[in-house]
Amino acid sequence: MQTKGQETRNHILKESRRLFTLQGFHNTSISEIIAATGVKKGNLYYHFPSKEELGLAVLLDVQHEFFDILEHSMVGDNAVERILHSCNSIMVLMEETDFVGGCLFGNTALEMTDLSSRFGKVVREVFSHWIQLIEQELRQDVGSNGNGKTLSPETLAIAVVAILEGGIMLSRVYQDKKSLEACIRAIEGLIRI
Amino acid sequence: MQTKGQETRNHILKESRRLFTLQGFHNTSISEIIAATGVKKGNLYYHFPSKEELGLAVLLDVQHEFFDILEHSMVGDNAVERILHSCNSIMVLMEETDFVGGCLFGNTALEMTDLSSRFGKVVREVFSHWIQLIEQELRQDVGSNGNGKTLSPETLAIAVVAILEGGIMLSRVYQDKKSLEACIRAIEGLIRI
Repeated sequence: MQTKGQETRNHILKESRRLFTLQGFHNTSISEIIAATGVKKGNLYYHFPSKEELGLAVLLDVQHEFFDILEHSMVGDNAVERILHSCNSIMVLMEETDFVGGCLFGNTALEMTDLSSRFGKVVREVFSHWIQLIEQELRQDVGSNGNGKTLSPETLAIAVVAILEGGIMLSRVYQDKKSLEACIRAIEGLIRI
Repeated sequence: MQTKGQETRNHILKESRRLFTLQGFHNTSISEIIAATGVKKGNLYYHFPSKEELGLAVLLDVQHEFFDILEHSMVGDNAVERILHSCNSIMVLMEETDFVGGCLFGNTALEMTDLSSRFGKVVREVFSHWIQLIEQELRQDVGSNGNGKTLSPETLAIAVVAILEGGIMLSRVYQDKKSLEACIRAIEGLIRI
């Protein structure tokens, strides 16, 4: 069971995530977070001493949730099926928000990586871990993939994550799922036996 | 020959582009642009009545330059070669800036699309035109590509742009060219005969 303090902390995290994802980090003010959460300023600063600490806590929270969903979605008889299942679970996540906001890690990568080494570190960890998970899957089936003959599992894994991030971006730009769907079909073409 | 006014306008555009690409639009203040350009506030507002107008003018300037480079780089004996050449010209552009900043359209897409319909419109135009150029190339060789049998030229074109944008993002995150190189090899795998 959550204490009142944990409940407040989580409430601030979820509302801040929504605002950061939608508007970006720099473009979201502490006043907006206070207005959205209804939490008093002193209480907010008790849980998160600065906006940067809050931003980092949101990233770590999303990181935890994302890998939980990703790893649970990697089910199927072979690597290709497991990877495609995980891509489809990302499609479901994006559809739930109507492609508004997109991927918080991608957004943060583009908004902040050059500016803040602490944010950059989390974003690098997320992408490295994600690429690794896919690479491990592909390594099991190496050689049996059409492109596995000429492209290494690492190259294919980097490309899978890149296509998904690019696809999420395009679906956000056009506000429809067509782009991300096309990208997932291309991933299938890239890794299919 | 440029008039003094055109020179000033261009100088403001180039410096603002550098700052917006590096720091994002919201995170760059008019004061920073004034400091970076050495142009007086009144003169800046004479050329660009608002920060939004300046942001739009920068996007249109980059759009023009980007398609000029892209279309000139589409050389080669067949569609695959022409597309790969254009990918490599993007790699050169990114290397020139050491992958700091990345793609202004991608950054703007993630920072602004939900917020400003005028910025969103330019970003959508850029991606649509880019996808179209690649789709036209692939349409000439349709059926001869490995994935051309199962994936339409449109699907492949969307995926090529998505991989490049994702690859630019990852290369920016890791500050090295490995990710974008891997992505270009994957594009080759995806569209090669």
